[in-house]
Amino acid sequence: MSTATPASRYATTVLERCDALAAFSDDPGRLTRRFATSAWRAAGEAIEGWMRDAGMATRRDAIGNVIGRLEGAGAGTFVLGSHLDTVVDAGRYDGPLGVLVAIACAQRLRDEDREPPFAIEVVAFADEEGVRYGTAYLGSATLAGTLDQALLARTDANGISMADAIDAIGGDPGAVAAARRDPADLLGYCEVHIEQGPVLEDEDVPVGVVTAIAGQTRARVTFAGSPGHAGTVPMAMRHDALPAAAEWILAVEDTARSSDGLVATVGDARIDPGAANVIPGQVILALDVRHADDDARAAAAAQLRQRADAIARARDLRSAWAPMQDNPAVECSPALADALADAVSAAGHRVVRLPSGAGHDAVAMSAIAPVAMLFVRCAGGISHHPAEAVAPDDVAAAIDVLTGYLAATVSSDGTT
Amino acid sequence: MSTATPASRYATTVLERCDALAAFSDDPGRLTRRFATSAWRAAGEAIEGWMRDAGMATRRDAIGNVIGRLEGAGAGTFVLGSHLDTVVDAGRYDGPLGVLVAIACAQRLRDEDREPPFAIEVVAFADEEGVRYGTAYLGSATLAGTLDQALLARTDANGISMADAIDAIGGDPGAVAAARRDPADLLGYCEVHIEQGPVLEDEDVPVGVVTAIAGQTRARVTFAGSPGHAGTVPMAMRHDALPAAAEWILAVEDTARSSDGLVATVGDARIDPGAANVIPGQVILALDVRHADDDARAAAAAQLRQRADAIARARDLRSAWAPMQDNPAVECSPALADALADAVSAAGHRVVRLPSGAGHDAVAMSAIAPVAMLFVRCAGGISHHPAEAVAPDDVAAAIDVLTGYLAATVSSDGTT
Repeated sequence: MSTATPASRYATTVLERCDALAAFSDDPGRLTRRFATSAWRAAGEAIEGWMRDAGMATRRDAIGNVIGRLEGAGAGTFVLGSHLDTVVDAGRYDGPLGVLVAIACAQRLRDEDREPPFAIEVVAFADEEGVRYGTAYLGSATLAGTLDQALLARTDANGISMADAIDAIGGDPGAVAAARRDPADLLGYCEVHIEQGPVLEDEDVPVGVVTAIAGQTRARVTFAGSPGHAGTVPMAMRHDALPAAAEWILAVEDTARSSDGLVATVGDARIDPGAANVIPGQVILALDVRHADDDARAAAAAQLRQRADAIARARDLRSAWAPMQDNPAVECSPALADALADAVSAAGHRVVRLPSGAGHDAVAMSAIAPVAMLFVRCAGGISHHPAEAVAPDDVAAAIDVLTGYLAATVSSDGTT
Repeated sequence: MSTATPASRYATTVLERCDALAAFSDDPGRLTRRFATSAWRAAGEAIEGWMRDAGMATRRDAIGNVIGRLEGAGAGTFVLGSHLDTVVDAGRYDGPLGVLVAIACAQRLRDEDREPPFAIEVVAFADEEGVRYGTAYLGSATLAGTLDQALLARTDANGISMADAIDAIGGDPGAVAAARRDPADLLGYCEVHIEQGPVLEDEDVPVGVVTAIAGQTRARVTFAGSPGHAGTVPMAMRHDALPAAAEWILAVEDTARSSDGLVATVGDARIDPGAANVIPGQVILALDVRHADDDARAAAAAQLRQRADAIARARDLRSAWAPMQDNPAVECSPALADALADAVSAAGHRVVRLPSGAGHDAVAMSAIAPVAMLFVRCAGGISHHPAEAVAPDDVAAAIDVLTGYLAATVSSDGTT
């Protein structure tokens, strides 16, 4: 019989390890950890050491995913994980927190002498942000067997191919295609991640259960008119592209506000020629639309495309719509999500369910396993920024919930 | 007694000379003629030669204005002119056309043996566009005695001071302050210039009489909210700066459309951070407002400032208004404008009066003389671009009108 250890002790260790990993950076004075750099290798080695400390057997796969395995009493494997790379000038929790909370849960099970009824694997994915090669999910797509092998020839900003980078870290580019994790024994995948949004803070809860990872449409929308001298062309004779773009920006906002669960953003505008005394001849806008339901997203995108055409036509301008990206939504497993919600309740917290607007390794992992995600409240909803912050109590809550989630099918004597 | 020569002959010469001047460029492959460069000197020498051919006595003043003088029978001097510098990648008519039409009129009076009752001075102003030193009207402000002498210490992109540049072209920086043209004998100033707008083309007339040169307000208007992840921040929790900016861009257009004679333009927008997947935290807009009436312009600017504040407040954002420029309008002399209109009618054209939305040397010259301007229709209203174009018949019309304008007080025997 074991004695339960307070989660706060593990949370302290998790936060200390997040700080320690933040020291492994490609750039001096800020945190940037690209795939397969020396800082990335050092971070992976630290993680592997912590996995071993928690009693896990470790290995690296062909692309450099760090995998720790804790055997269980019975058949099947449940995978936990997140990524060890970062964006440029990153915060220290996006990615590492999920890996370290998973290791903490394994450590806690061991400390409390509880053998899981199934094996637990913790994966620190090699690359999720896609900074070095401009394409995301390298690690989880390799594990899921969905990585486009043509990417191995892609080169980074210094002309180094992905294959050479994998080779340089002791990986095996020739074996990446065969690195797919056999899904036959996989029971599920659960990822802990900071929310990267303000909902949990607004709801005043430490953690939230993810319902789905939203699908995403990106497009470049152009309004083209005629440039002209800002002083000499009377208003009635103008074909100014910017007011047309402005009408559409408001239509984007209005459409998203009036459709439940939809977010739509115009994040950038390029104005040509873009001078104080010249009427804009052309404006190109960057649109991003997300929804947990693919039909709702497609309908919104189609509506916004029609609106752009109508606005341009009414002003005797031209509009164009260039699709940039179209990713379907990934639904979290209802059974896994419900079990996670039960664990949230059991840990004494109100259950808040929310979609994830950002992509995660769970997207790629959904190809081989049912997936679940647990979000942790982060300060101000800020992410991808050095100001990223999580509260120790919220990390303790995540550890409690995840341990409870695993323990819901685990007893100290190994029976379920 | 002379025989009248058709204006078309002079128009052909004017256009040939515009082509010839276009060969004097600082940049290979395009026309750029900055103040006091070797191309600029060569252009000035060609103009001086054409002035002499027309029977004018020529001189250069301290800053390098090229001045040709044709004596008249009686007292007083009437000044004609425009500028010999250009913008970067310029057309060939903005500036030179006014100088060459003026020389053509002097030539024609001489060819027709008509001595003017007053002296005519044609000035090719040294710098109006302000490309080299970032400040306009160097030539006309020197003649008008209004040039800020502190500008002589200003340096160009290569670190050469204006004083050194003037010295290098044989000018006299120490004498610039004293180069003011004594206004005592000045009867007026008339400038011929391409319209740089589409009004005359729309009205289907070759020339137009300028009523005033519009005043101009420039400001930088900022909307500041909070950046955030485009996928994770629900619409209701956003403080997106771009839709606020969009509302205001439409307010600018609406205000200008509903106020007669007002033009208002948002020519540029800088979005921060400006990424496809990030909610804009800040937008800075460049506003340009012009009107021939200063009170109307000031009222519009004040109204737009209030609107920016109101829009920001309603969205729980912040707004800021940074004044960049505030130039009063210059009214053309009603007497000179009426005489010019009479000359337009006498030449067989319908009189169209219009304000100038762009600034011209006439602005600076208004400090020492009543001013008038004759606009020449230009293709598509295009200017500051290699595609700038004027029709030979329209140039002939301008020569007819300007000669008639001078001749209205001139007879072949010198009596008025």
